[in-house]
Amino acid sequence: MSFTLHGIPVSRGIAIGRAYLIAPAALDVDHYLIEPDQIGEEIARFHAAQEAVHAELDALREDLAADAPSEMGAFINVHSMILNDAMLVQETIDLVRTRRYNVEWALTEQLQILSRHFDDIEDEYLRERKADIEQVVERVLKALAGAPSTASLVAHNAASNGHNEMIVVAHDIAPADMLQFKTQAFKGFVTDLGGRTSHTAIVARSLGIPASVGVQQASALIRQNDLIIVDGDHGIVIVDPAPIVLEEYSYRQSEKVLEQRKLQRLKFSPTQTLDGTKIELCANIELPDDAQTAVEAGAMGVGLFRTEFLFMNHKNRLPEEEEQFEAYKRAIELMNGRPVTIRTIDVGADKPLDSMGGDGYETAPNPALGLRAIRWSLSEPQMFMTQLRAILRASAFGPTKILIPMLAHAQEIDQTLDLIQEAKRQLDDAGIAYDPNVQVGAMIEIPAAAIAVRLFLKRLDFLSIGTNDLIQYTLAIDRADNAVAHLYDPLHPAVLNLIAFTLREANRAGVPVSICGEMAGDPTATRLLLGLGLTEFSMHPSQLLVVKQEILRSNLKAFEKPVADVLAAYEPAELATALAQLQKA
Amino acid sequence: MSFTLHGIPVSRGIAIGRAYLIAPAALDVDHYLIEPDQIGEEIARFHAAQEAVHAELDALREDLAADAPSEMGAFINVHSMILNDAMLVQETIDLVRTRRYNVEWALTEQLQILSRHFDDIEDEYLRERKADIEQVVERVLKALAGAPSTASLVAHNAASNGHNEMIVVAHDIAPADMLQFKTQAFKGFVTDLGGRTSHTAIVARSLGIPASVGVQQASALIRQNDLIIVDGDHGIVIVDPAPIVLEEYSYRQSEKVLEQRKLQRLKFSPTQTLDGTKIELCANIELPDDAQTAVEAGAMGVGLFRTEFLFMNHKNRLPEEEEQFEAYKRAIELMNGRPVTIRTIDVGADKPLDSMGGDGYETAPNPALGLRAIRWSLSEPQMFMTQLRAILRASAFGPTKILIPMLAHAQEIDQTLDLIQEAKRQLDDAGIAYDPNVQVGAMIEIPAAAIAVRLFLKRLDFLSIGTNDLIQYTLAIDRADNAVAHLYDPLHPAVLNLIAFTLREANRAGVPVSICGEMAGDPTATRLLLGLGLTEFSMHPSQLLVVKQEILRSNLKAFEKPVADVLAAYEPAELATALAQLQKA
Repeated sequence: MSFTLHGIPVSRGIAIGRAYLIAPAALDVDHYLIEPDQIGEEIARFHAAQEAVHAELDALREDLAADAPSEMGAFINVHSMILNDAMLVQETIDLVRTRRYNVEWALTEQLQILSRHFDDIEDEYLRERKADIEQVVERVLKALAGAPSTASLVAHNAASNGHNEMIVVAHDIAPADMLQFKTQAFKGFVTDLGGRTSHTAIVARSLGIPASVGVQQASALIRQNDLIIVDGDHGIVIVDPAPIVLEEYSYRQSEKVLEQRKLQRLKFSPTQTLDGTKIELCANIELPDDAQTAVEAGAMGVGLFRTEFLFMNHKNRLPEEEEQFEAYKRAIELMNGRPVTIRTIDVGADKPLDSMGGDGYETAPNPALGLRAIRWSLSEPQMFMTQLRAILRASAFGPTKILIPMLAHAQEIDQTLDLIQEAKRQLDDAGIAYDPNVQVGAMIEIPAAAIAVRLFLKRLDFLSIGTNDLIQYTLAIDRADNAVAHLYDPLHPAVLNLIAFTLREANRAGVPVSICGEMAGDPTATRLLLGLGLTEFSMHPSQLLVVKQEILRSNLKAFEKPVADVLAAYEPAELATALAQLQKA
Repeated sequence: MSFTLHGIPVSRGIAIGRAYLIAPAALDVDHYLIEPDQIGEEIARFHAAQEAVHAELDALREDLAADAPSEMGAFINVHSMILNDAMLVQETIDLVRTRRYNVEWALTEQLQILSRHFDDIEDEYLRERKADIEQVVERVLKALAGAPSTASLVAHNAASNGHNEMIVVAHDIAPADMLQFKTQAFKGFVTDLGGRTSHTAIVARSLGIPASVGVQQASALIRQNDLIIVDGDHGIVIVDPAPIVLEEYSYRQSEKVLEQRKLQRLKFSPTQTLDGTKIELCANIELPDDAQTAVEAGAMGVGLFRTEFLFMNHKNRLPEEEEQFEAYKRAIELMNGRPVTIRTIDVGADKPLDSMGGDGYETAPNPALGLRAIRWSLSEPQMFMTQLRAILRASAFGPTKILIPMLAHAQEIDQTLDLIQEAKRQLDDAGIAYDPNVQVGAMIEIPAAAIAVRLFLKRLDFLSIGTNDLIQYTLAIDRADNAVAHLYDPLHPAVLNLIAFTLREANRAGVPVSICGEMAGDPTATRLLLGLGLTEFSMHPSQLLVVKQEILRSNLKAFEKPVADVLAAYEPAELATALAQLQKA
């Protein structure tokens, strides 16, 4: 029977293949009370399992391919650290001792306690880290049961069955397993859990493999070897598709391949409109090694290097300056002279692992309106200074820009610029090289920043409009919230006028401005953005050529009238008409 | 030793008096395991305590003063319901049976389980209801210990000591106790728990008694009979103040009394500026009986009747049409011909008590950006229609307007207006009277609504700018979040220009527009708002006369230049200068 599951689209493209099902976490274990004289023995069982998992992780680390991204090894290190964490180990042993639970019971009980703490965490990125703990517990439980680990199972089956047309379906995928899957070239990924910033998502995007995550119950509903379609553009998974649906998707898939092949021809042509306006196309990247993909896709630079990946490898803090510097430098060197715009950390204030098992942290009632991004950085100047110094040091190795997220007030901008000056002074004092002319820019993603953009134009070297957040705040809609996602509308007249106003003011002041939100990579929005005066776009590398194609076909003169009509159209019907005119212009 | 505590200001004014300490909840109980043959006896103890509390609540209900607000009786009814709730009673008994906990232990354990569910609730209003359960458990624990209830203790001590200069200090105050305190005329209230919409806050505002809530640890740090100052304007509690501080506050208090007395003279004079522009001053109210206070304060109408109080008395839903109708009708009749603007329900989608103890509900990651206010109403048309019919029926008894919160999209407005038409049709069919010309207006509190205000001007009879939320979304700041509250700035140039734009567009279109946020009741903002063209203000009744005084002193002609300067001033220094000029104009 054919059915369709819905999840979160995290990596674009269509995959068609057989489900390669990885059993959900073996957390369904026996619970029994042990006798007092069995306590020592039970604890010894736990330690033995712990050692077995350590050995397993060490083996994985050694097996790492030489060209594996450095983050991969770090995933494994995080798991090793969790495996030794007192909140997991000591508390589990205490449960065995005081309540006489068998160790499996104690371990799953303690996992539940830790999980509850994680569920209270507002920041999506950090909340994802709960999965790491679950994966470690799963490994230990498997070791207790004497079962082999997921990755070795997969490797075994893959060897015997072949897996070229396989799509991994799992409750969740451990980073280390994700790494194994990489070298084995699966066609797609589907997981029950996860969000846009889960390991699975980041790695899938980096590999360019279609993925849908957060597909609830996928691993329960899909059976081994089911034929499935993963539509990574829409987060849809179609199980056992009807022949006509399969045909449709096969057709779309081959169309995409053809189109991509056709688009490849555009790679080396200059990006300009029919009337000769030069447009700059840059890439958004998430891991240092993504810079390679950006270059291959023809990006003129990195318009947005997100630095949230730095959190993936550290329990409760950003990495030391040296490790950050190396990561930034790697991206800059891979870009080979093209500019790299590095955004300072853009997550929230929660440091959950600090207080794992304790009640020491407060959760914000509305994290999106709370202490995050630059607000958090300014409240943690030591952490922020470390990041600034690392970016400045990397700037000695190629053209680098610093991009600050979520600024809204004049004082915040001034405070930030002061700290950048201070970081430069520190490097001067230490005699460390950096580019003294490194440019500093701001995300325009809060309505107040767009409306009061002249505060920004006076103080900063460039602007980057973050349309995703700008739309979210302008409409007071959290698009990650299914209950209201239908009200998230990039074409609301208020949104269009706010973007138009920002571009107009920046262009008038001669301050470079780009857009790095999803709108920039959406070819159906390209004409509108060109017509509003945008000349710098930054997007996922996979979108570069299709947007370029749209630009090459565009005649800015012809857009003037329809774009003016779009901005003047407040009524939905008028707006639809004006947009249709623009597509025909 | 003098010290100062900080909390949430919920009811204005200064109170100076002796602390009347109510011991924190007696939840610090003995935990012990009972023998299997004691289970029956233990459960019988529980039922006896339950009966004792029922009797206590019944006695309280009978003692209600004839003029007590009807909500008071309902508080008691809610507690009676909780006392019979299976999640509390049955689960506690199960814990006694299965784990052999003594009943005090079982009860506090079950309270903790329920509390955790409540902590996950995003909506502030509903989260407050957790306090009701705690209060019921506290009563039962006291009955188990044979101790008298708080209220009877207070009554006893008050009779022996006199309490005219007493300030209640408590961990939390049960609604029923709050009621007793009312008739005993305390000077102020301080609680460890609570927020702007807790019972204590709503009742204190309704009584006009200064109160600070959420003053963490107040009941632990303040000792019985300490001299304390409650500054209900700023949420501050000063314990054992130095003589000079006491003198300062006594002076400010007597100044306030003098000023209030002086202001009383303004009550019957017409509200107009020196140059003869008529200004309309209305009241914001929260309980139907607050309309009386509004009339006494000289309000020309109710500019905002919040209907969230309807939730106070019902476990998981709005009350039936009849009960709502009676509440609205009471406010309308008390206003005696002056218009009453009733805002439809403005809370979120959580219905926690529905799933008490279950995991059936999801919590939104960012409730302020989620399914709340009109978004929720449109998703629950049956609930919304009930409220609309009740308001329409009440409109037969005096001039009534319907105000819709959180609209942002043309489609939402149209959908809402259609439902209002449908409600009218239903009343027509049933032959029930209502005012066919009842006006419908929208809150302007989302940036998109202000920017695209022409969508609203075309469709609605009036607008009301909700500055609190408009500022929150424009700046992406949750001011209830202490970590970022310092960034909440009503004078951010983007906020001022957005308010100015909305007023200008509405005035140009000839659509009446008022402001009902806190800015409207802040006399330091009066000149600015008048200068921006505002002619209708709505505020807490206590602010009416001081704002009126400012209006009577104002000359709109003289404001033109400085207000233009304020709007043109983006730099903080220029803005400060322009605002200072305006105050001198």
